[in-house]
Amino acid sequence: MISRRSFLHTAGSTLAAASLASPRADAQVPAIKLLPGKQIGFALVGLGNLSINQLMPAFAQCRRAKLVGLVSGRPEKAKQLAQLYGVDPKNIYSYDNYDRIADNPAIDVIYVVLPNSMHAEYTVRALKAGKHVLCEKPMATTAEDCERMIAAAKAANRKLMVDYRVRYEPFNQALIAYARETTEAGPTRLILADAGFNIGDPTQWRLRKPMAGGGSLMDIGIYALNAARYLTGEEPVAVNAMMHSTPNDPRFSEVEENIMFQLRFPSGILANCGSSYGGGVNRHRVVKQRGAAELEPASSYTGLRMRVWRGGNIEERVLPQRNHFTGSMDHFADCIINDTAPLTPGEEGLKDMRIIAAIYEAARSARTVALS
Amino acid sequence: MISRRSFLHTAGSTLAAASLASPRADAQVPAIKLLPGKQIGFALVGLGNLSINQLMPAFAQCRRAKLVGLVSGRPEKAKQLAQLYGVDPKNIYSYDNYDRIADNPAIDVIYVVLPNSMHAEYTVRALKAGKHVLCEKPMATTAEDCERMIAAAKAANRKLMVDYRVRYEPFNQALIAYARETTEAGPTRLILADAGFNIGDPTQWRLRKPMAGGGSLMDIGIYALNAARYLTGEEPVAVNAMMHSTPNDPRFSEVEENIMFQLRFPSGILANCGSSYGGGVNRHRVVKQRGAAELEPASSYTGLRMRVWRGGNIEERVLPQRNHFTGSMDHFADCIINDTAPLTPGEEGLKDMRIIAAIYEAARSARTVALS
Repeated sequence: MISRRSFLHTAGSTLAAASLASPRADAQVPAIKLLPGKQIGFALVGLGNLSINQLMPAFAQCRRAKLVGLVSGRPEKAKQLAQLYGVDPKNIYSYDNYDRIADNPAIDVIYVVLPNSMHAEYTVRALKAGKHVLCEKPMATTAEDCERMIAAAKAANRKLMVDYRVRYEPFNQALIAYARETTEAGPTRLILADAGFNIGDPTQWRLRKPMAGGGSLMDIGIYALNAARYLTGEEPVAVNAMMHSTPNDPRFSEVEENIMFQLRFPSGILANCGSSYGGGVNRHRVVKQRGAAELEPASSYTGLRMRVWRGGNIEERVLPQRNHFTGSMDHFADCIINDTAPLTPGEEGLKDMRIIAAIYEAARSARTVALS
Repeated sequence: MISRRSFLHTAGSTLAAASLASPRADAQVPAIKLLPGKQIGFALVGLGNLSINQLMPAFAQCRRAKLVGLVSGRPEKAKQLAQLYGVDPKNIYSYDNYDRIADNPAIDVIYVVLPNSMHAEYTVRALKAGKHVLCEKPMATTAEDCERMIAAAKAANRKLMVDYRVRYEPFNQALIAYARETTEAGPTRLILADAGFNIGDPTQWRLRKPMAGGGSLMDIGIYALNAARYLTGEEPVAVNAMMHSTPNDPRFSEVEENIMFQLRFPSGILANCGSSYGGGVNRHRVVKQRGAAELEPASSYTGLRMRVWRGGNIEERVLPQRNHFTGSMDHFADCIINDTAPLTPGEEGLKDMRIIAAIYEAARSARTVALS
């Protein structure tokens, strides 16, 4: 449970940090109207690594989002975690009684943290239960599922947001400002964005096509794709791609290891992007006419760094290190309190999913695929 | 003129520096047999910026290559430069009496530093005059010209080398060793290589298609392409590309500004590469299974840096800063003295030229182009 004291302390330091960020950062994430005491109750669906190691601790720093419920197929695990995080045991659900969350007024938001292929079903059911939904990326495994989720949100008159967490932290916000607003270095010419790591356990669901929907692109390359889109502020009109998986590597019997893709944007900006489950790379670079800026790492949970090439020098830009999930969850809570649209709604997830399908098609067909 | 004292000093410091480089570096550039007093006479053809600001000063540090002749259409300029660099005035030629170099035994090597479209003609004529030829990159503007140059070298029984200068300096040599020989980080998965700058004067020959043969790819992107090949030690089997030039920018009325290209290598390594005349980027990165290494800058004349990602840390690797042209010119001089094959012969230039043609074709046709 968040104590009053720790809540105030956290709020204070977060606000101080935010004031160091670029004007763009503030412009992108609507300013929070401090409503004393008002908090939004979140229930986590799926208690895997991400929930346990990232999301639950992130609530401790939230000003508006509060962990109040858990949904899990493992009652003992759920009970222990509930105790650890001060979650009322009566707000623990299983997959069997999931839909009864409809009757629980303490839960405002369902945060879907399940394997990709289950996002659509559990999102739609949560919306039907009258709850708002925050969904992990990728939003689903097909564009059709994304459309179904968006339609369900509309029908239920509830909000749907995809948790593109790096949109809610200062480094990527500062790089957006550099790419789209800074004029001193001239227009942006090229975007270079790569995301990858050497994936471990060959038995994990991320490597099973039916559950993951795809390989590195679906899981981690989506950061590079999303970055190319938010750094340009444009939608790509054409994609190229090349794909490769190490033969006989048991990790890649169903999904791709590496996929490199190129995007053409309407303004003429070209983006060269990479996605890997075979090696580590984690970087967003913006190349302008008379300068450049880079985040590296760019999408890690912590320790992001920003360098700016300016007048022959390389400057390190010091920005506040914020918990990305704290930022995204508080943002969604604010959207609910103020009835505003989230920065990364379901439509944002759908756009990525359509481009991901085009990237796979480009790799398979060995030709440039046009996007409408 | 190189004094005995400065020559010895330079030789000593170069050898000391070389001993700090990786074993691969030594393996690639054959060790020099010190033959006291023996030097190879070079004549520069074309007295533009590269000759004046880079090549002439580079001779001061050479152990084997010596500037002995100049060829220029501007006699006053040639005379002044000859005086400055201790070149005998009787070794100054114009384009009218160029072929009479055949009668000058002081000149062993013609270094062709003319606009790209003139490389073939002046190389073939030099070979017919019985001289060895060192040719600037790109080797020519078409693969057919490259083939003609190679045939002329064979017919004349003379050596032909393309001055891919970064092959002759320690940083790129160390990155080759990392990519191809280091085993601790596992196999190489991805190559990222980019080269670009914001080009100035719109009237320069590099922006005229007939003289340059192409735009940024021909001039600077060739560094990224060549790096992808020497870092893998393989020849690409397929290419993708996207191209863009800013409309109405007078610099790009004839040649391309930006071109991003992807290469697939037989081992499965994918390379994502970029080339730009619109913004600065200069970097070679090797992504392995459990580590990575990067040069940035990677192909500047000076100030190269190397970083290695290893066990969660980033280590800066300190290597000797050597003059690239000193390395390449001395290497060619050694090849002539010892009758050995240069590391970057005409065949190397031809390979790049064929791939460059395929990259342009891929960009134009919007499909993957296979290379045989």
